[in-house]
Amino acid sequence: MSPQRVETDFSDEARPARRPGGRSAEVRRRVLDAVRAELVEHGYDALSMDAVADRSAVHRTTVYRRWRDVGGLLADVLAEAAGDEWRPSDTGSLDDDLIAVNREVYAALTGDSPITTALIAASFRSEQAADALRVFWADRYDRCAVIVRRAIERGEISARTDARRLLIAATAPLYHELVLLRTAAGVRLADHAARDAATAARAGAFEA
Amino acid sequence: MSPQRVETDFSDEARPARRPGGRSAEVRRRVLDAVRAELVEHGYDALSMDAVADRSAVHRTTVYRRWRDVGGLLADVLAEAAGDEWRPSDTGSLDDDLIAVNREVYAALTGDSPITTALIAASFRSEQAADALRVFWADRYDRCAVIVRRAIERGEISARTDARRLLIAATAPLYHELVLLRTAAGVRLADHAARDAATAARAGAFEA
Repeated sequence: MSPQRVETDFSDEARPARRPGGRSAEVRRRVLDAVRAELVEHGYDALSMDAVADRSAVHRTTVYRRWRDVGGLLADVLAEAAGDEWRPSDTGSLDDDLIAVNREVYAALTGDSPITTALIAASFRSEQAADALRVFWADRYDRCAVIVRRAIERGEISARTDARRLLIAATAPLYHELVLLRTAAGVRLADHAARDAATAARAGAFEA
Repeated sequence: MSPQRVETDFSDEARPARRPGGRSAEVRRRVLDAVRAELVEHGYDALSMDAVADRSAVHRTTVYRRWRDVGGLLADVLAEAAGDEWRPSDTGSLDDDLIAVNREVYAALTGDSPITTALIAASFRSEQAADALRVFWADRYDRCAVIVRRAIERGEISARTDARRLLIAATAPLYHELVLLRTAAGVRLADHAARDAATAARAGAFEA
């Protein structure tokens, strides 16, 4: 099951065009809030359909019918996150556009509610969570490609710059240091990685 | 317990100076081989003291006494890995030194025996595995710092280059693409990331 599939199933059932923000949307909101809270508080191991049903006060049969299993819940959390209107800031320079993205990534990986880290941990246990996370990130990197296009249009970097390679270079050090190496790096890490990638791009790195 | 602690405990018991490669070393080799095989075949969830004892044909009481729990086993696998004589290749250029390292990382993350990925997955479940992995990586990045020193001595890059930032920039895209994003990137990824980091360093990125 892909996150899109979950979205489709849910939309069919909820008929959002006829009942926008109705009971069905309310049920989804309560269930996904419960999934996020359980994940942050207790981790993937303790995540169960019954715990989510109890916490959300939604009937168990409804939770099982709509989301089927824990993988379905995680996939829908990511599908919901992917459905937002997020766009990267347009600051007028490559350095500052990348710094803005990296500060958001840094905040997501170090904040009080470490839902991103919890979902990454879950992706090592659940194929559905891994698939949904891959789809989520692919979409986010696609949305960020406009940063590279704008820098090319301004003449800051070569028109042959590979957008994905540049964006991965800018963001990967944050995931590596904070999620895998687990270093207690300050937010300077976000700015350094952004500026280093911008410097590399201006020097002709990332050219296809 | 840190991996060093495990090493020390074990060395005290085995008295390697008096019995090099003796029965105690043989027991450790068999047990750690069993841990790696179990981890690769069945993952962290199925890893148990009893499964390791059965597979290694080492008495359960010995396994419990020396390694105490699954976290102790994982920490010792990493402590053993950290105890090797690995040094990065000295190819004569920054680009090729980084490419050599990255091809090793790529092979470790995509090879037939995905022990590195299995240990990363385990680090999200076991604090001891996470600690041991952090120590292991810190040591590996320290050993790679000579790559940056040589490039500075050859006049390829600024003497103010931060070795760790450069090395993280070179390697992080591999971990991000292969472990977190799970893209099926070819080995070109290793070469690209190495060359992009070298280009950035020559352009003055990573300066402290």
